Amino acid sequence: MLLYRFIIEKKIIVQKIGIVGATGYTGVELLRILAVHPQICVHAVTSRSNVGTRVDAMFPNLRGFVDNVFVNPDDKSLFDCDLVFFATPNGVAMKGTQVLLDKGIKVIDLAADYRIKDLSIWKHWYGMEHASPDLVESAVYGLPELNRAQIKDALLVANPGCYPTAVTLGLLPLVKNGIADFGGIIADCKSGASGAGRGANVGTLLCEAGDSFKAYNVGGHRHQPEIAQTLSLVSGEEVDFTFVPHLLPMIRGIHATIYTKVLAEHDLQSLYEDFYKNEAFVDVLPAGQHPETRSVKTSNTCRMAVHRLPNSDKVVVLSVIDNLVKGAAGQAVQNMNLMLGLEEILGINVPGVLP
Amino acid sequence: MLLYRFIIEKKIIVQKIGIVGATGYTGVELLRILAVHPQICVHAVTSRSNVGTRVDAMFPNLRGFVDNVFVNPDDKSLFDCDLVFFATPNGVAMKGTQVLLDKGIKVIDLAADYRIKDLSIWKHWYGMEHASPDLVESAVYGLPELNRAQIKDALLVANPGCYPTAVTLGLLPLVKNGIADFGGIIADCKSGASGAGRGANVGTLLCEAGDSFKAYNVGGHRHQPEIAQTLSLVSGEEVDFTFVPHLLPMIRGIHATIYTKVLAEHDLQSLYEDFYKNEAFVDVLPAGQHPETRSVKTSNTCRMAVHRLPNSDKVVVLSVIDNLVKGAAGQAVQNMNLMLGLEEILGINVPGVLP
Amino acid sequence: MLLYRFIIEKKIIVQKIGIVGATGYTGVELLRILAVHPQICVHAVTSRSNVGTRVDAMFPNLRGFVDNVFVNPDDKSLFDCDLVFFATPNGVAMKGTQVLLDKGIKVIDLAADYRIKDLSIWKHWYGMEHASPDLVESAVYGLPELNRAQIKDALLVANPGCYPTAVTLGLLPLVKNGIADFGGIIADCKSGASGAGRGANVGTLLCEAGDSFKAYNVGGHRHQPEIAQTLSLVSGEEVDFTFVPHLLPMIRGIHATIYTKVLAEHDLQSLYEDFYKNEAFVDVLPAGQHPETRSVKTSNTCRMAVHRLPNSDKVVVLSVIDNLVKGAAGQAVQNMNLMLGLEEILGINVPGVLP
Amino acid sequence: MLLYRFIIEKKIIVQKIGIVGATGYTGVELLRILAVHPQICVHAVTSRSNVGTRVDAMFPNLRGFVDNVFVNPDDKSLFDCDLVFFATPNGVAMKGTQVLLDKGIKVIDLAADYRIKDLSIWKHWYGMEHASPDLVESAVYGLPELNRAQIKDALLVANPGCYPTAVTLGLLPLVKNGIADFGGIIADCKSGASGAGRGANVGTLLCEAGDSFKAYNVGGHRHQPEIAQTLSLVSGEEVDFTFVPHLLPMIRGIHATIYTKVLAEHDLQSLYEDFYKNEAFVDVLPAGQHPETRSVKTSNTCRMAVHRLPNSDKVVVLSVIDNLVKGAAGQAVQNMNLMLGLEEILGINVPGVLP
Repeated sequence: MLLYRFIIEKKIIVQKIGIVGATGYTGVELLRILAVHPQICVHAVTSRSNVGTRVDAMFPNLRGFVDNVFVNPDDKSLFDCDLVFFATPNGVAMKGTQVLLDKGIKVIDLAADYRIKDLSIWKHWYGMEHASPDLVESAVYGLPELNRAQIKDALLVANPGCYPTAVTLGLLPLVKNGIADFGGIIADCKSGASGAGRGANVGTLLCEAGDSFKAYNVGGHRHQPEIAQTLSLVSGEEVDFTFVPHLLPMIRGIHATIYTKVLAEHDLQSLYEDFYKNEAFVDVLPAGQHPETRSVKTSNTCRMAVHRLPNSDKVVVLSVIDNLVKGAAGQAVQNMNLMLGLEEILGINVPGVLP
Repeated sequence: MLLYRFIIEKKIIVQKIGIVGATGYTGVELLRILAVHPQICVHAVTSRSNVGTRVDAMFPNLRGFVDNVFVNPDDKSLFDCDLVFFATPNGVAMKGTQVLLDKGIKVIDLAADYRIKDLSIWKHWYGMEHASPDLVESAVYGLPELNRAQIKDALLVANPGCYPTAVTLGLLPLVKNGIADFGGIIADCKSGASGAGRGANVGTLLCEAGDSFKAYNVGGHRHQPEIAQTLSLVSGEEVDFTFVPHLLPMIRGIHATIYTKVLAEHDLQSLYEDFYKNEAFVDVLPAGQHPETRSVKTSNTCRMAVHRLPNSDKVVVLSVIDNLVKGAAGQAVQNMNLMLGLEEILGINVPGVLP
Repeated sequence: MLLYRFIIEKKIIVQKIGIVGATGYTGVELLRILAVHPQICVHAVTSRSNVGTRVDAMFPNLRGFVDNVFVNPDDKSLFDCDLVFFATPNGVAMKGTQVLLDKGIKVIDLAADYRIKDLSIWKHWYGMEHASPDLVESAVYGLPELNRAQIKDALLVANPGCYPTAVTLGLLPLVKNGIADFGGIIADCKSGASGAGRGANVGTLLCEAGDSFKAYNVGGHRHQPEIAQTLSLVSGEEVDFTFVPHLLPMIRGIHATIYTKVLAEHDLQSLYEDFYKNEAFVDVLPAGQHPETRSVKTSNTCRMAVHRLPNSDKVVVLSVIDNLVKGAAGQAVQNMNLMLGLEEILGINVPGVLP
Repeated sequence: MLLYRFIIEKKIIVQKIGIVGATGYTGVELLRILAVHPQICVHAVTSRSNVGTRVDAMFPNLRGFVDNVFVNPDDKSLFDCDLVFFATPNGVAMKGTQVLLDKGIKVIDLAADYRIKDLSIWKHWYGMEHASPDLVESAVYGLPELNRAQIKDALLVANPGCYPTAVTLGLLPLVKNGIADFGGIIADCKSGASGAGRGANVGTLLCEAGDSFKAYNVGGHRHQPEIAQTLSLVSGEEVDFTFVPHLLPMIRGIHATIYTKVLAEHDLQSLYEDFYKNEAFVDVLPAGQHPETRSVKTSNTCRMAVHRLPNSDKVVVLSVIDNLVKGAAGQAVQNMNLMLGLEEILGINVPGVLP
């Protein structure tokens, strides 16, 4: 097979990108997207335990598109990059960010190290002391539909969690306009198993997580404070927010079913359509429809519908994303484009795969 | 292969059972259970469009266990039965029940013809005039955990819907004890695709419903009034009840995630355990656990957990069933056992299949 | 919830059964079947790493049916048993069998320790020295359709592998009658992921094995010599047998597609039907049909079809089993029934679950 | 949401493309690929039964990328096109091709109307008289790895079937070099359910085809003569070719397991690698590996491995494709690129999606 990389490399500028910890699902998804991105090249891919292995030996879908070899996280090639992604477990980026920033390299963390502004809350949910507390404040929360301007100027971006992306986008039009009842918002969320990562684990075996459905962490999940933080920041109020995640017997996709009330009469359909009319990656369905997770599979789109229940002040918002794309790697590339001064949609302007 | 039917037919009494319309998933599930039930025999199985076909030619899992041949719904063998199940679409049982009752044959309808007491509500949701309105009042709603005594004496039982079984059992301890806030109960429910039946339909093709997840009928679903009716009857109050169903990319299983508030301090774990301590088919998990649908697959058990959210009056109840068993055929057999004076658990006292 | 165990325990005799290593899929399947077996009780369940844990805490489908607690493999309760199953990894039973036999306890090994008669072949494929070579010869290969008489008298039974059960049953009528061409039999086999066990493993994660299909071990698989051994023993000839296994994106089920030639004209349909006409667990489909794995899901049936290709000497046999039932635990119970003098079908005479 | 079409339409040339019958899985896949193809635009999309409906109302994954509205097959916009795809059932293209060719419009048929050169064989397998027998001979079989030069000059291309693509590419190196034993090649093939199309059909419901596996058409399948024709044309000999298809419980993907013998010693690994070294869409894995269907999901790659069995003349070739891409729409676009003088890989040079 020919190597496409060289076929397509009529690329003109090409900024250099590094990925720390590219052996999980977020990593391979980043590589898949970046492999055909027209204006960057993947310069360094690190994995402490796979040094010397070709990346496409681990992920054969990338054969023909990627010829990188895993290097050590302290390999000097990483320091030649313009921007580095951390696709690592929580607690890794916070130890490696400063050294990159010091060299003028921009950083996007796909984990949770820089998402929560209140360090005591972060410590409570993530169970460790923060290693670079000073960076937390300056980090920009990388939800472009909320913080586009700040992201463009950011040196460090905290890429949002998958559930928070789906839920926050679903609520923004209500919350920004101050028309949701903050007294009791419920997000009943469902995620495909890729959200649990690529680690060997009995609970996510095909024979355990397949052909079944369950809730988990009903008593508390790390994404609750992340979402609550954004809702409070946007609304300027304390928000009473309940979050229950569930595990779907499939690989990709998040569906958030959000329950709230509106305080007065509003044309919610128009409100939502107007709110997102200039967004490339948020699609409000026509009134009465229901988004399917498969309609966004492999795409960077968040697709949603807003339902006012008949004769009621209750509102149900349905919001779907591909957790690995808009919920992780795709949104990270969207942030990268903004940070590097590229067109925001570059490399991620493709439709979802259906069926 | 030997025919088990004759191997195992050391059955002693053997009452005769008929099934009208046994070509759907509820029908084959009834046949699967009844084929090895120790004290009944399946005497007549009807299907207008399959007269003369062996039942096991349509459902090869039954080969060796069932030697019935489909007959016409007016075949006289049906009138020899002690009890007849209607496993037909809505609107069929209401036309065929009276003639059976007149002959002293007991009837269980697995469809919705006799579930809703208010005929105007029924007509609104099912889109037709009721053909036997007089029978509606006398029909007993076949949820044994609620109406056991009446079922034992009933001539006509309305087998509950699948969602209503999971949701109602999940709420009964709170509602019967009057400690739920009736101002806003939400049931976010998820069902496997077998709930949609065996009809040829683009929407439930493997390539459409597989590997995806969506809500449907957010604006209104027939099971909402069924559940609301029971909650109101039990509580004696009007209940503000929101119901949103979703389609899971799997075959069997319903998971109800129920959100409510409690009005005062209660030890909910003990309340639930005590409430169901004598029930054979309701299992309350230890505190803090989450039931998986697979734990009840092929069994007649409803498994649940009750979670009080930390520092909050909010309660989340998780309730799972196999929609074809406790949500349909298994519960119907449970009702049959009660109506025929048999031991309630006969033929359905088997554990679920895992994995 | 009531405990069924005591509800149903109107059992009369009740022989005592032990299970060594019941934490895998074979173990939970044995427990599921034995929990409602009318004439045995599960007396001891061992797991070195789970001593003191209730079995139903690990497998919640068994709640209400099993009240055993895991004990150590050297717990004396094991020595009170009439028969002990080893549901352990390869290499464990060979160390623990003799001590049980010495106490008059019968043994069934669900792993491969006693399947291969030629110790050098065994060592080659299983990568270890055999710890009890003397027992290998006396062990009976537990395929009842082949060795029923010997099993009845056996003290030690080697339960066949899952693939070998499906393939061997599919070939027996041809091989026993000497009408297959032994010059080139091919078995292209496909298995659900439960065959790979319950160990934490990246390769069998939902996100790795789900929604995909692949062959594995094309260069050689342990079940090849097991099948070849039986074919040679039955035919008295060397058999040129090719075996290629594949992994299906589902949990239960094996499908063997077997290619061979017949040396002369034969009515293969009658041959197969006659061959198995007295077998309770082998079902030959009518001519021209194709068995589905789902038709045997959760049942002990092997369902098959034999196709003579048009104008050709080629024969294609299709054979399906549930790998955890007829391919493991169900067949083990069938062997147990024979060894304990019980009716062969006891506890396993139930139809498969469909859909 | 913004419409990407206009964002990205900095396209320069833009030839006009029509699609007849774009309501099936092949159609939506063509639209997905063509929506972001840099040098064509989709000008006309026909569907007799959906005239006036927006295409993205049927396929919401295309929202933002496609603003076409279904038109009648005789709409004049179709006649403005440079090239028209038929993504219709068998028997449609043969009636509509000539009128397009007469207007100088090139045609690619994704169905089987022009694949079989022998009209009597075609009639036997497709059960109808051919409506344009004269075109059959001039039609080029659109397997670029075999017929690239002819495709470039073709006015009418018969896009190969999905199974034939996987099997033929797997066998070409052996057959072209005359080193396979033509006395008995077997292809045991497995396909995801999307191969069965989007029609409402009980057999491909999630509850029927999901969580199960079966062979079908063992007695004869239409792709057998298509493959045999190519093998004979290439080898110049009659080939004894057995083909058995199976249905996988997943949506996309074909896996062919091909059994043959080689007549002498050859370094098959080098043979295969050399044979395909200049192909962009055929990837030969390193020795000893096994391709997974998921490694090619959504991509136009055929990935394969060749295994010589130890101490044997037997060869097993494993070949995987995405049946909707390299097996249908992707290969059709590859052919389109060749026919229109575009770079062959344009619009399809993207890696597969994993997981």
